[in-house]
Amino acid sequence: MSVLPPAPLFTQSADAAQLQEFSSFISELSKISGAIIRGHYLSGAAVESKSDQSPVTAADRETEQALRAAIMTRYPHHGIIGEEFGPHRQDAEYCWILDPIDGTKAFVTNCYIFGTLISLTYRGRPIIGALHSPLMEHLLVGTAAGTTLNGKPVGMRSCNAIGDAMLLATDHWDIFKYHNGPAFELLSREARLYRGWGDCHGYFQLATGGADIMLDPVLKIWDIMSFIPIIEGAGGRITDWQGNTPIGATSIVATGGAIHDAVLRVLNP
Amino acid sequence: MSVLPPAPLFTQSADAAQLQEFSSFISELSKISGAIIRGHYLSGAAVESKSDQSPVTAADRETEQALRAAIMTRYPHHGIIGEEFGPHRQDAEYCWILDPIDGTKAFVTNCYIFGTLISLTYRGRPIIGALHSPLMEHLLVGTAAGTTLNGKPVGMRSCNAIGDAMLLATDHWDIFKYHNGPAFELLSREARLYRGWGDCHGYFQLATGGADIMLDPVLKIWDIMSFIPIIEGAGGRITDWQGNTPIGATSIVATGGAIHDAVLRVLNP
Repeated sequence: MSVLPPAPLFTQSADAAQLQEFSSFISELSKISGAIIRGHYLSGAAVESKSDQSPVTAADRETEQALRAAIMTRYPHHGIIGEEFGPHRQDAEYCWILDPIDGTKAFVTNCYIFGTLISLTYRGRPIIGALHSPLMEHLLVGTAAGTTLNGKPVGMRSCNAIGDAMLLATDHWDIFKYHNGPAFELLSREARLYRGWGDCHGYFQLATGGADIMLDPVLKIWDIMSFIPIIEGAGGRITDWQGNTPIGATSIVATGGAIHDAVLRVLNP
Repeated sequence: MSVLPPAPLFTQSADAAQLQEFSSFISELSKISGAIIRGHYLSGAAVESKSDQSPVTAADRETEQALRAAIMTRYPHHGIIGEEFGPHRQDAEYCWILDPIDGTKAFVTNCYIFGTLISLTYRGRPIIGALHSPLMEHLLVGTAAGTTLNGKPVGMRSCNAIGDAMLLATDHWDIFKYHNGPAFELLSREARLYRGWGDCHGYFQLATGGADIMLDPVLKIWDIMSFIPIIEGAGGRITDWQGNTPIGATSIVATGGAIHDAVLRVLNP
C-alpha cells in the first residue's frame, strides 16, 4: 500500500491567540443570530405564507444586519461580504463572510437542517469557519488546527471505499443541471447509502464523523468559505467538483480524504 | 369548478375526554423517550462506531423498553406492537404502536431529522398518532379532531398544482426499487422543489404547512400508524402508493388533499 501525499490545505494558518480571539467572537455572533432566527422559525408568518420569499427575507436580513453591526463595532477595519447586503471594504486584509441562513429552503419548509455560516478570510484565504444551528445551538468551528463542536474536538471517520460510504447531496436535479448527471447517478447507486440531506448540515454530518461524501452542485462564496476550515480541520478534503481549489469555486466535493480521488474519478469520467 | 368529495377518514373518531387522556399520556411518554435518545445522540459511541448498528440498537432498545414499561403499568390490558420487541397482546381492543427511532439512518449519521412515533389503535384503526423530536422537543399529535404542535393547532397549506408543490421523499433509489421509478422521476421534475428530507420529518413538514407531498416507498406498520391521524388531523390526505387505505399498507402518499389524485395519476401511469 502506498502512502498518500497530504492533501493541500486551503485553510490559512493562524496563531493560537488569534484563533482564540476569533472563536470567542464567533461564539458571541452565534448567540445574536441564533436568537433572531429562532424567533422566525415555525412562526405563524412562515406557516401562513403562500410565497416562500417574505418570511425568509425578513429573517435573513434581520440576522445579517445584526451580525454586520456587531462586526463593524468590534473590527471597524475589517471587510464584510454577506449574502443579503453585499460587500463592505471587501479589499481589507481581514474579511468576514456571512450567510445568515444557509439552507433557506429547509428553513421555510420547517425542516431542521439549516444554519448560519460565518467565516473570516485573511488575504482571501479562510483562517476560521463556523456553522451554527440556531435550533440545536450547535456551534461547529474549524481552523487549520482542528474542528470543534461546542468546544470539543470532532473529526471525520475513516472510509476507504465508495461502497462503504454514506453520500449526501443538496439537490438531486441541480446536479443533473450543472454537472454530469449519469456519473452522479452511478456514484449514488454505488455508495452504501445516498440521502438528500445537504446544505450546511451535510458538512456538519461529515465533520462530526457521521457521513463520508458531501456534494454541492452550485454555490456562492458565502456558502463555501466556512466549509473549508471545517472540513480540513476535521481531517477531510474539500475541492470543487473537478478537484481544484474550493476558494472561488462554485461547487464542492468534500470527503474524509482517502476516497476523494476515487469520487472525483466517478464524477468526472 | 366541481367540489371534491371529502376524503375517506382512516382515523377512528374518539370522544374528547379519551383524546385528552391519551394525549396527556403520550406527552409523558415523549419525555421518557426524549431523555433517553438525547443521551445517545452525537455521543462518543456513535461518532466512534464503525458499524451503524450497535449504538442505534442500544438507543432503540432502551427507548422501546422504557415506553413499553410505562404503557404496561398504565394500561395493563392494552396491546403493544413495537419495532424492537415484537407484539404483546396484539389482539386487545386498544393497541399501542411504537417506533422508538424513526429515521435511524438520520440518527446514526448525525442528521437532525428523526423522531419517536407513538400511536394508539382501537380495533385496528388509529385514534391518535404522535411524532416527537427528541432534539427539538416538538410533539406533534394528530386525531380526527385536529393536529397540534406542542398543544397549538397546525394545518396543511393549500396547494392546487403539482408545479407549485414542495415534494419530499425518504429514499430516492428505494422508489425505483419498489415502484415505477421513471414515473416518480417525472413527478420530482414537475414539482416546484424536490428534496430527500423524509422519514417522520417529512410528515412534520406537511402537517405544519411547510411542504405539500410526502412519499414513502417502503414502510412497516410502526412507521405508518402515527402518520394517519397526523396528516388527516392537519386536513390532508394519506393513502398507499396506489390510493388505497394506508392501514396495513407498505407505502405512503400524503398530500394536502387537492392534488392527491393528480399525484397518484403521475405515480401510477
